Amino acid sequence: MMMVPSRRPLLAAVLCWSLVLFAAPAAEGKVHHHTWDIAYRYKSPDCFEKLAVTINGEFPGPTIRATQGDTIVVTVNNHLETENTGIHWHGIRQIGSPWADGTVGVTQCPILPGETFTYRFVVDRPGTYLYHAHYGMQRVAGLDGMIVVSVPAGVSEPFSYDEEHTVLLMDWWHKSVYEQAVGLASDPLVFVNEPQSLLINGRGRFNCSQSQAAGVGCNASSPECSLPTLFTAAPGKTYRLRIGSLTSLSSLNLEIQGHSMTVVEADGHYVNPVRVGSLFVYSGETYSVLVTADQDPSMSYWAASHVVGRDRKTPSGLAVLRYSRNESDPPRTLPPAGPAWNDTASRVRQSRSIVAHPAHVEPLPARPDRALLLLNTQNRINNRLKWAVNGVSLAFPPTPFLVSMTMKRGGMYDQQKQRPPPETYDYRSYDIASPPAANGTVASAAYRLGLGSVVDVVLQNTVALNGKSETHPWHLHGHDFWVLAYGEGKFDPDKDVAKFNLRDPIMKNTVALHPMGWTAVRFRADNPGVWLFHCHIEAHVYMGMAVVFEEGIDKVGRLPKAIMGCGRST
Amino acid sequence: MMMVPSRRPLLAAVLCWSLVLFAAPAAEGKVHHHTWDIAYRYKSPDCFEKLAVTINGEFPGPTIRATQGDTIVVTVNNHLETENTGIHWHGIRQIGSPWADGTVGVTQCPILPGETFTYRFVVDRPGTYLYHAHYGMQRVAGLDGMIVVSVPAGVSEPFSYDEEHTVLLMDWWHKSVYEQAVGLASDPLVFVNEPQSLLINGRGRFNCSQSQAAGVGCNASSPECSLPTLFTAAPGKTYRLRIGSLTSLSSLNLEIQGHSMTVVEADGHYVNPVRVGSLFVYSGETYSVLVTADQDPSMSYWAASHVVGRDRKTPSGLAVLRYSRNESDPPRTLPPAGPAWNDTASRVRQSRSIVAHPAHVEPLPARPDRALLLLNTQNRINNRLKWAVNGVSLAFPPTPFLVSMTMKRGGMYDQQKQRPPPETYDYRSYDIASPPAANGTVASAAYRLGLGSVVDVVLQNTVALNGKSETHPWHLHGHDFWVLAYGEGKFDPDKDVAKFNLRDPIMKNTVALHPMGWTAVRFRADNPGVWLFHCHIEAHVYMGMAVVFEEGIDKVGRLPKAIMGCGRST
Repeated sequence: MMMVPSRRPLLAAVLCWSLVLFAAPAAEGKVHHHTWDIAYRYKSPDCFEKLAVTINGEFPGPTIRATQGDTIVVTVNNHLETENTGIHWHGIRQIGSPWADGTVGVTQCPILPGETFTYRFVVDRPGTYLYHAHYGMQRVAGLDGMIVVSVPAGVSEPFSYDEEHTVLLMDWWHKSVYEQAVGLASDPLVFVNEPQSLLINGRGRFNCSQSQAAGVGCNASSPECSLPTLFTAAPGKTYRLRIGSLTSLSSLNLEIQGHSMTVVEADGHYVNPVRVGSLFVYSGETYSVLVTADQDPSMSYWAASHVVGRDRKTPSGLAVLRYSRNESDPPRTLPPAGPAWNDTASRVRQSRSIVAHPAHVEPLPARPDRALLLLNTQNRINNRLKWAVNGVSLAFPPTPFLVSMTMKRGGMYDQQKQRPPPETYDYRSYDIASPPAANGTVASAAYRLGLGSVVDVVLQNTVALNGKSETHPWHLHGHDFWVLAYGEGKFDPDKDVAKFNLRDPIMKNTVALHPMGWTAVRFRADNPGVWLFHCHIEAHVYMGMAVVFEEGIDKVGRLPKAIMGCGRST
Repeated sequence: MMMVPSRRPLLAAVLCWSLVLFAAPAAEGKVHHHTWDIAYRYKSPDCFEKLAVTINGEFPGPTIRATQGDTIVVTVNNHLETENTGIHWHGIRQIGSPWADGTVGVTQCPILPGETFTYRFVVDRPGTYLYHAHYGMQRVAGLDGMIVVSVPAGVSEPFSYDEEHTVLLMDWWHKSVYEQAVGLASDPLVFVNEPQSLLINGRGRFNCSQSQAAGVGCNASSPECSLPTLFTAAPGKTYRLRIGSLTSLSSLNLEIQGHSMTVVEADGHYVNPVRVGSLFVYSGETYSVLVTADQDPSMSYWAASHVVGRDRKTPSGLAVLRYSRNESDPPRTLPPAGPAWNDTASRVRQSRSIVAHPAHVEPLPARPDRALLLLNTQNRINNRLKWAVNGVSLAFPPTPFLVSMTMKRGGMYDQQKQRPPPETYDYRSYDIASPPAANGTVASAAYRLGLGSVVDVVLQNTVALNGKSETHPWHLHGHDFWVLAYGEGKFDPDKDVAKFNLRDPIMKNTVALHPMGWTAVRFRADNPGVWLFHCHIEAHVYMGMAVVFEEGIDKVGRLPKAIMGCGRST
């Protein structure tokens, strides 16, 4: 599995765990088998009834639980009528199993209706992860859930708690995913607009009196949209909340009335504990926070998610923290109002406060072998509004990259005559506050990275064609990266490299690019395969805001036949 | 192309045309190339805006026009987001091109989003045909159109007219095709219910004041739903209307106020002319009728389609026959009310009146080599409501029949251990007015027919689980059949065979099975391939009301790679 020298620091860490793991007789860990029937079903998560993609009838899907080193096997039966699917295991690096990443067009062909596909992968690190559809904008329709990987028995984490609970955050629309996608592909573009509701663990609340023009039923007394309990607390105890966001658009702030949170994990990595009054969570991120039940136990308390970064029109997502003596009453207070939507400074501050736990700093190379400076722009290309990176808007090709780049005969990928995408942009003359009219191209090209090389990526934000600058949470498949810096304004390679945190950067798989700012990350290209790196906003990746990294494709070995069948891979 | 002795009668007819065709230098006919981008777009065919599947932005699709002997090449680019497609060329027998029939699960794998598939086939007979999606219930969402094949220059038809026009009849729902399918797959079943409107050439009219609860816009003044002109007549001239029905559910009656119609063609075969006041048209049927502009030219006249066979709740589809002197005015009269919905006798009478033109009788074999008696029932199988034929409800397999039956290695089809479906049912004891509780099985089995053999099929109707007996228009792919008889009640092989019309039966590809009746057809299994035979109601075929015929699979030859990619055909 480990084939390049540059993996050694990580190997060392894995070997530490291995001492524990391999001491036991069942050395390879348990194998967890799941069989999932994926189908549309009518659901009313916010009281408004509409079709949702369900797993075995459930929305959101079940939480996958395992212990570090275990193997997860998920057999997916697609019953989505005439629609394909593919499931990404978000945060799992898929070391040795790049074909199981579930990214349609990158690592596999879609799973056709009536067909079965089996994902098999090892969860090699403990932590909080996610899974979701990774095909077109299908995630908007549902098919989301969490993965919880525990440390093996006998291994302790750098914090303690009495109980744990999962908190999955989402946003929710009443328009179908097809209606949304067709709007985005239209000229003029019809945006998906703000969600109708925010969901906490699959429940939200839409005001049914607004649903006159809604078509399908809205039932305020549906049990599917009853106020969820975040958890029931025993006074004095400490709870670990494993929080994940699978919003399609919204950046969120999560607050539990009267209770502070101590952040201890981010994307599967231990954080130098930081106490916050509320937590900003971007789509694709996970956090563990500790909450101590230290408030008046005769009361119950609101947990609320709020949209930030966009002028919010969507009501808060609500849940209740109950104390065990007071299980039935909803809080008598008003829910918290949440922070100002446009208080970017607070969000940047919190992003910067998340650094590695002193005992769990992953040593990082002092400098990169290669640096990419990726400008995120909104472009008009071929009469359509697109998102592009250095002027290139990614189109997912009919033949998945992993297949086309692996197949030697005919040199399928090279035949496409893809020019390498640009490494940088004209950062000296470019004005991010007033960018030039942006053209660009739609292409299916990849950055080809040296196996084992160290790559820096600086994401540069600017204003969109509407003059606003948005938050883009960028997610990297197949790797974690060190978060080196969050900067304001335009990144200047001559000066800003000095600001990189090389001492205790947190590793993550998803990082926010804040409005009018830049974000720098570093990773080791040590996982043979082809990996997507993209904005985790569904509308944005649909519009092309993504790049592809290839590394060590010749080391991938024989691809499973099951990922084939589309494009030129039949 | 013609490889079996039993094709000779047909060959003879084809050779007659060939004398004309091959006299000209461009002997093989013209090749017509079409490139179709298939995509969802917002459309308002009945004033209510919803997504429709469009061809190059059009709904319904463009009419394909060609001359007998020409080759049609349609390059299909699928832009349906995450949804697959496949297009059936309804009435085209695909002699020598069974892989171009477009029936997903039978003759090909679906066309994936982002992919291109090219259909290439010869239109070997003149006449009026159709095309439409043939994948799940996708036809409900649009993707319908007509094919008009003219006789070659110098060949005359057994009737004459001054001008011709196409009339495509449809029914239309506001629920998405996904919502409809999920309802049908639910327990208890949620039926699609009656359509919101009937369309004539893609236009209908929904009362927008009823659309309060509709969600998307309803705009009564949208040009997309303005009253269509059927055609503009010059007094005294005669018009050929090429009428096709692609309703998803409804049997229709078409009437042109004040004008009788003379039926001259049915499903591409010349009819012994029969004059009707109104025409019953079942889904999948085509007719040519002659209409003479013999009425007061200072008036205009309603053309109206009405639901028959179901207690109608849907407003009539309307269009206007205008006289050239009076182009702008809508008729001052009320539209015709249409026949009583439950007047089955009139419908059976009209069905029986359609026989072959005396100069165009296709001689038929005196007796069959094999006879199938197929009972159409509604069954409860595995807690789902299904339609079944002799107790077997067809499931479309992940690997298309044409592929699984052709591939020798591993004997893919036989491996499925499909038991042959039953040839008959217990017709002696079965009470069609009060059938026994029906169990049954869901299977993907085929009837395997001897190549060149003559097959009789008697379709037997009964009552559904709701106690009603419906009309089922059965459509056969890859062949035309002789329509031998329409009977009432229960078919008795000992007595009713004597009632078969062996003198001048019309050939068709779609035939009505009337309520509580039976319909007998005969065909020659002379087209190597695998062919679906099914009720043309989308909800019914979705629920399994279909059988599959295989013949001469070993003569099919090498399948194009383009139809592969799904199931076990990767």
